[in-house]
Amino acid sequence: MSEPLSSTDPYKGVRDFYPADWARLDAMFGRVRETLLRSGYEEYNASPLERSELYEAKTSEEIVNEQTYTFTDRGERRVTLRPEMTPTLARMVAAKRRELSFPLRWFSIGNRFRYERPQKGRLREFYQADVDLVGLPEGEADIEIVRLASALLKSFGASEESFVIRMNSRPLLNAACAAAGLTGESVRQYLRLLDKKSKMTPEAFAAASSTISAKDPLAIITDSGAAPEVARLKKALLDRIAALAARGVSNVVFDSSITRGFDYYTGMVFEVYDTNPVNPRAIFGGGRFDGLVALFGGAPVPAVGFALGDVTLADFLDAHSLMPSGSARVPQLYVGTPRTPDIPAAQAFADTLRAQGCRVFVNISDRALGDQIKDAVRRGIPLFVAYGANEIANQTLRMKILATGEESALPVSELPARLRSGS
Amino acid sequence: MSEPLSSTDPYKGVRDFYPADWARLDAMFGRVRETLLRSGYEEYNASPLERSELYEAKTSEEIVNEQTYTFTDRGERRVTLRPEMTPTLARMVAAKRRELSFPLRWFSIGNRFRYERPQKGRLREFYQADVDLVGLPEGEADIEIVRLASALLKSFGASEESFVIRMNSRPLLNAACAAAGLTGESVRQYLRLLDKKSKMTPEAFAAASSTISAKDPLAIITDSGAAPEVARLKKALLDRIAALAARGVSNVVFDSSITRGFDYYTGMVFEVYDTNPVNPRAIFGGGRFDGLVALFGGAPVPAVGFALGDVTLADFLDAHSLMPSGSARVPQLYVGTPRTPDIPAAQAFADTLRAQGCRVFVNISDRALGDQIKDAVRRGIPLFVAYGANEIANQTLRMKILATGEESALPVSELPARLRSGS
Repeated sequence: MSEPLSSTDPYKGVRDFYPADWARLDAMFGRVRETLLRSGYEEYNASPLERSELYEAKTSEEIVNEQTYTFTDRGERRVTLRPEMTPTLARMVAAKRRELSFPLRWFSIGNRFRYERPQKGRLREFYQADVDLVGLPEGEADIEIVRLASALLKSFGASEESFVIRMNSRPLLNAACAAAGLTGESVRQYLRLLDKKSKMTPEAFAAASSTISAKDPLAIITDSGAAPEVARLKKALLDRIAALAARGVSNVVFDSSITRGFDYYTGMVFEVYDTNPVNPRAIFGGGRFDGLVALFGGAPVPAVGFALGDVTLADFLDAHSLMPSGSARVPQLYVGTPRTPDIPAAQAFADTLRAQGCRVFVNISDRALGDQIKDAVRRGIPLFVAYGANEIANQTLRMKILATGEESALPVSELPARLRSGS
Repeated sequence: MSEPLSSTDPYKGVRDFYPADWARLDAMFGRVRETLLRSGYEEYNASPLERSELYEAKTSEEIVNEQTYTFTDRGERRVTLRPEMTPTLARMVAAKRRELSFPLRWFSIGNRFRYERPQKGRLREFYQADVDLVGLPEGEADIEIVRLASALLKSFGASEESFVIRMNSRPLLNAACAAAGLTGESVRQYLRLLDKKSKMTPEAFAAASSTISAKDPLAIITDSGAAPEVARLKKALLDRIAALAARGVSNVVFDSSITRGFDYYTGMVFEVYDTNPVNPRAIFGGGRFDGLVALFGGAPVPAVGFALGDVTLADFLDAHSLMPSGSARVPQLYVGTPRTPDIPAAQAFADTLRAQGCRVFVNISDRALGDQIKDAVRRGIPLFVAYGANEIANQTLRMKILATGEESALPVSELPARLRSGS
């Protein structure tokens, strides 16, 4: 126990959450959780340790090859720290497909890991809410998922003017690729290029596109007169967008360049963007993936969902001044102790308040009462009372509102009601 | 995307949490969190990925060498999945020791990882609540921590008869070892043996003990007349136990064989045991560790705390029929849809209930109304209403209580109040 440790830094690319940081994250995902529970969704979870096999066929190549934490355990098993939740969801659904009551409305909130290259300065651990509706084909299920994605942002007070939902369809893209003469691997190559379009100049995209395809699939989508299947799928998507507008979500637009990075999408795909130009990245996105559960055998189980990460959500909320405060976790009352021998009675008094649901901090240090008041201010605790021999004898407290310095006397018996009323 | 996946099992030794499993864990730690917040404790968190260096000098040898997940990343950094939270706490406190307001009352609830040998069938990932009071020496701080440990079990309805807190002191053990003539490494050897005493026969323990020490340190504690430092420390511990009894915790006993596995304890140590003989393992434990923060440099920062794991806590609660139900997360109402075209109106109606804080499930499948009622029963949702053209026209619902089959008519406008009242 003798060599000094060289650094107090966390591991590279991950964050320490001091109480104020955690209260912020918790308030944010607490709001998300509350909205999802009200919508009839149930929370599930799993270990971040997953068998590596799960990621080898199903996610985008870049993630499997370059961006996972994968190692071999002492039993020669290959283990990966989950980079995303969807393969775990598919595994869990496949494992109990005979027992579960479909449709499943499931969500999971937790950490995901990506081995980002150090020079990029990006996070290697982030938090994400994954929301999925499993067991129903497109139609009402897709509409519910998009309405829910919108409801989550609105639950923070966001208006429809503050974000836009860009929607596309993989079958539409596939039909356009087919009409352009692409097949097999060249379709996947084109979709991967399209996924990077927003980060490229139009000239660079056109040049790269022309090496894959002589005809431009996006032009075929725009002018679909000569491609009836493309026209049919485009109309279906525009009808979906109109239905969403009729049902309270009027900020959905068609965007033929939205693809989503993962290979497993089979239907609708969408990404939600901040309309504030200071925050140009997608906030989150999702889509339909009807083939994933069947990778474990058995009949396909259709599914649709999305995932919402902590960093992009916080950027959006900060940009619109909508970040909820973490104050529901700060103690409501600081009980000061005039002298050290008062501590046992103060603790017992605090326990009676706690039993009534109040959050109460008790001083057990030997600092002077004036310093205890300063300590309460520093901790952001709004109310202060001293509790010692005088207060016990008179059963009366002087309560100090620290924001204003205002003081008032009140009987001990009235304190719980005052704390519950929040004043 | 073609090879079928061979198994739906999770990685060896970790658990999948389906919604009912997660609701149970969440209800358990939700109760713990609520008690801690009321007691003025603040939640912090950190990544499970830690620099391996953190565990190399400070935890017990067995854990470092045999029981951690440690690997090397592509930047040649050695990374460990945290086996426990205390070294992370010490690192975070050391990193901001100049900015933090001491004492810190901190807790963290999350997963910890241990590489258990497969044949033991033990878990490789478990959940734990770590609770610490940092910045005060023994005295009131130790008393608060033991009172809080007791309050946590009592918050589930446990009586003092259902558990016992076995308390010892590392300085007392060290003084007894010194009086027995032990020094340096042989003291650590003896303490490690003592930590295994409860799993050994008295004969095996005596035999192993005699190879380390000619005199028996435990006998010196029992009969401390010839060892004044042992007598002094023993009296201090018995006084502490008497003080706890006077302050509402009367199930603390002195047990000279309690050591706790980790090397870092420097003062009081304790373990909480179920008094029900079906459950003989320690439920949880803790102690004082005044040297850990100073391993990062600077003056020592005294600290005391404990950690409460999910498996042993659940065993205790199950043994005493005290496990809280996870029903606060189940939807309160199932809204059935007589015909598929009713779904949009039913969803909009559900949204008005959700905006008032109710948890509402809406059917969006095409199953018949009778099957929707069966579906509600299967999901454990207590109330059912159909919502279609008739209900919209009359603004009246028939609400079915699924546990009894009882039905009653009520105006649409009264439903939110009925749901809030829980009937």
